[in-house]
Amino acid sequence: MTVQASPIRNVLFIMCDQLRWDAISCSGHSVIETPNIDRLAGRGVRFDRAYAQGAVCGSSRMSFYTGRYVQSHGARWNRVPLSIGQRTLGDHLRPYGLRTVLVGKTHHAPDRDSLAHLGLDPDAPENVYLMQCGFEGTERDDGLHPDQRNPFDLPYNRFLRANGFDVPNPWHTAANSVTDEAGNVVSGWLLRSSAYPAIVPNELSETAYMVDRAISFMSESGDDPWCMHLSFIKPHWPYVVSEPYHQLVHPNDLPATVRHDEERANEHPVLNAFQRSRIGSCFSRDEVRQTVYPAYLGLVKQIDDHLGRLFAALDAQGKTDETMIVFTADHGDYMGDHWMGEKDWFHDQSVKIPFIMVDPRPEADATRGSVSDQLVEAIDLAPTLVEAIGGDPSDLAHATWLEGRSLIPTLHESAETQLAASDEANFAETDFGYLEMSNHLPAGTTPEQMRATMVRTDRYKYILSEVGPNLLYDLHDDPDEFHDRAADPSLATVQAELHERLFAWYRQRDNTSTTVEPMRAASATPGDTANDGIVIGFWDEEELAAGLDGKLF
Amino acid sequence: MTVQASPIRNVLFIMCDQLRWDAISCSGHSVIETPNIDRLAGRGVRFDRAYAQGAVCGSSRMSFYTGRYVQSHGARWNRVPLSIGQRTLGDHLRPYGLRTVLVGKTHHAPDRDSLAHLGLDPDAPENVYLMQCGFEGTERDDGLHPDQRNPFDLPYNRFLRANGFDVPNPWHTAANSVTDEAGNVVSGWLLRSSAYPAIVPNELSETAYMVDRAISFMSESGDDPWCMHLSFIKPHWPYVVSEPYHQLVHPNDLPATVRHDEERANEHPVLNAFQRSRIGSCFSRDEVRQTVYPAYLGLVKQIDDHLGRLFAALDAQGKTDETMIVFTADHGDYMGDHWMGEKDWFHDQSVKIPFIMVDPRPEADATRGSVSDQLVEAIDLAPTLVEAIGGDPSDLAHATWLEGRSLIPTLHESAETQLAASDEANFAETDFGYLEMSNHLPAGTTPEQMRATMVRTDRYKYILSEVGPNLLYDLHDDPDEFHDRAADPSLATVQAELHERLFAWYRQRDNTSTTVEPMRAASATPGDTANDGIVIGFWDEEELAAGLDGKLF
Repeated sequence: MTVQASPIRNVLFIMCDQLRWDAISCSGHSVIETPNIDRLAGRGVRFDRAYAQGAVCGSSRMSFYTGRYVQSHGARWNRVPLSIGQRTLGDHLRPYGLRTVLVGKTHHAPDRDSLAHLGLDPDAPENVYLMQCGFEGTERDDGLHPDQRNPFDLPYNRFLRANGFDVPNPWHTAANSVTDEAGNVVSGWLLRSSAYPAIVPNELSETAYMVDRAISFMSESGDDPWCMHLSFIKPHWPYVVSEPYHQLVHPNDLPATVRHDEERANEHPVLNAFQRSRIGSCFSRDEVRQTVYPAYLGLVKQIDDHLGRLFAALDAQGKTDETMIVFTADHGDYMGDHWMGEKDWFHDQSVKIPFIMVDPRPEADATRGSVSDQLVEAIDLAPTLVEAIGGDPSDLAHATWLEGRSLIPTLHESAETQLAASDEANFAETDFGYLEMSNHLPAGTTPEQMRATMVRTDRYKYILSEVGPNLLYDLHDDPDEFHDRAADPSLATVQAELHERLFAWYRQRDNTSTTVEPMRAASATPGDTANDGIVIGFWDEEELAAGLDGKLF
Repeated sequence: MTVQASPIRNVLFIMCDQLRWDAISCSGHSVIETPNIDRLAGRGVRFDRAYAQGAVCGSSRMSFYTGRYVQSHGARWNRVPLSIGQRTLGDHLRPYGLRTVLVGKTHHAPDRDSLAHLGLDPDAPENVYLMQCGFEGTERDDGLHPDQRNPFDLPYNRFLRANGFDVPNPWHTAANSVTDEAGNVVSGWLLRSSAYPAIVPNELSETAYMVDRAISFMSESGDDPWCMHLSFIKPHWPYVVSEPYHQLVHPNDLPATVRHDEERANEHPVLNAFQRSRIGSCFSRDEVRQTVYPAYLGLVKQIDDHLGRLFAALDAQGKTDETMIVFTADHGDYMGDHWMGEKDWFHDQSVKIPFIMVDPRPEADATRGSVSDQLVEAIDLAPTLVEAIGGDPSDLAHATWLEGRSLIPTLHESAETQLAASDEANFAETDFGYLEMSNHLPAGTTPEQMRATMVRTDRYKYILSEVGPNLLYDLHDDPDEFHDRAADPSLATVQAELHERLFAWYRQRDNTSTTVEPMRAASATPGDTANDGIVIGFWDEEELAAGLDGKLF
């Protein structure tokens, strides 16, 4: 850092779940209007080539929260505990005096096995950060509450029961169910339900509730600085939304499905499995996409409207000018594109994310409203926030853990200077061995083989798949990623280079961050160990004396 | 495991520091006689192709103690703390009722930063295993105690002071110093001292003292089962040894130095740096080797003699038939071979280790005295011990952590059936950025580049070096590793295969072991998540009902 801007006071870190990078109007969506999110983009920088590190909630979020690649933090899928040996965003930010507060979802699984191993009480107040992914447990709600999980005590369920929906699990039977044309209550898990409005009205929706909670927190926090992680469950499924959002978009107005017959003709065993699996085959049906996508866009619009309330409250509290705002998502949603549904693979619909950052300080004035095509990643968030609140990401307390880089330089300069350098690359991982796809994969495929890693450079996307051949897309000639070029001899050199680049990336991953850099540097300084009495490689006193002068190294 | 042998009661895990695989007579050394170690080999199996995972004490030992590759445990060099998120041999063995006891060296650095982060008191009795690498702190001594480290309270120093060497640091001035021909006391760190006897007599040497402590522990332990890690500091430098061991071997009788002019002609920047650095250039001098190597062999002979006492005590206590014995080392010593000194690189002199296992049970009778050329590794020890004491290494409590495989099948069958399969391989890593070699490496080389990884197969040894080209040896045609064949076009395919193999190995390394396999398996079972209420990919009730029958996955 050359010039030190005055530190940011608060951080509002907004995450949507399963929000495609292109499902907001500032990214060019052809139908939906999201004026509040667009206004954020107008006040800050919108990163147009931002990627998640994992293509599923848990692994992606743990990369956001640790600032580390999945291979480094190890929580490779949903519900895989984050090792007690890791550190979170809260650990990096709290030393600067901010409260770190969660409102909504993290998908964090604490490392209960290690807590027990170390004799640490999971219920002790001092261990809350280990249990809540580095946040105070203000309002944790991971957003999926079927009856089987016995969610009677869920705060949102208590709220709904107090507001007229007095059933054991109104999350399911009211907020995520609908009444169909025959008057039957139908679960919102079923995709045909997306055509109907949710039983709860908009003001009692989970999205409204979370924004209410966020506004309450901001107002109650007084002058305490904070980093609030407002983490919406939506537009993640169940894809049902309250009136009037369920019918804002007419199916005929939807953008064309992004898919190509060549994709089905490709005999890649993993692509085939994704396409043929329950979810892929279901979302490849036109009725599904035409029913679900409008509700999905309605959920996004609903979020945008409530964000308008949130930003107005921030204004009213006089905190807009002292609060950095980040708007992003953990991953996208195929929504039938590429003959696939959900996420878990590496097309842009799945792994590319919306990423908007608003730095309210004067140093960022020059970049407001700009779009950066720098290749950025989820892991860049943590170092950016560290720098924003006055820390130095290169301090060892951060640098030994954080694998991303601060984006403050981009926010504080003209975005035109930040075009992607040819040596930039993004990396993402997936572990589809957790998915119910085994019937569609080659017999005998092991869980360890159901993995893949992506590297995306300025022009290419290369996917190393442990099952079947690797995949290569030329994003310049084929931005829709229809044509796998891995077998194209004219790209053999490109592919070999990307393969080596991925190998080098793996070799650079540390599994732990206990390496003590000052110790290493001292250890490697000629003469240092001998001065410390650890003498090896000297014949006699004369040679040692010369050595201690640094002459013999 | 098919047949279940009765569990072993005790484990005696003996490690020497810096003992070359070939510096014992059962491995064919041309001069030294080690009858007690040879007798162990006669009672058990000697593994003739065993490798350490790291070529330096700390990283190698952490692989022994965690059963994990260096890339997985993360303690990449001496004094790099072992992350609190890791588990040790003690964690794996103690649940079976064994005390795990340390007598000697571990080179373990506790993760004090994480202890503080978690609010754990390093001095609390319940945290001793975190501080002592999984062992009770019976007698910890990492063996290097220059005055600069203020080792006044070292138990061995107290012992020496009580036995006539009443100076502040008798470890240095008596046990590791000599009196030269002019009557001057000279530090044992200086290599010319190796020609003279240590000032302390044999019975007060560090080796004798550790064996005394081990015998005392065994006798005091009564009927409690134990795993004792007796970990000698020697024959690690300072290379001085008490009378008469200092002159057992005449310099003229030493085996020929294993080196070739072609090795100096090779312009590989890392090989050059090792050769030209202080240690390499020093040990390349004939006077150094001829002075130091005899003392080194004397230290080995001294260990062998004291092991005779130890084994006699084990016999006298009636525990020989209920005790598994392992004899090994953390790495070797170049001793001038390949124009190098110390260790840290991948020639067999450095990274190959002695590895003898004695299983006293009748099931092992058929293999006694045999030599196995199976490719085995340090990480195989932990699962072997788990199985020996009655555990099942495939139990998740072990299997989620341990990356090696149990060698009990080899010990319980005819060794002839255990020849190395063509798909076996050993892996080792080095991190020479901690060494004082920067003056000899290309300008601008970063610490991250000062790394290399080795894969050794039945026939080849391939070294991926982050600096300079990779290296390839054909061990069949060139067992001495004189001729780097990396540029040989006839081996291009072999090299490419080894390169890919190493890449696959990196991809298989997990940084943490929090993955919950039963959760993954359930998650991947078609229909399981839908049955758990997490429903996605179904249009209506009818489709869901069919799905819950497992028909649609």
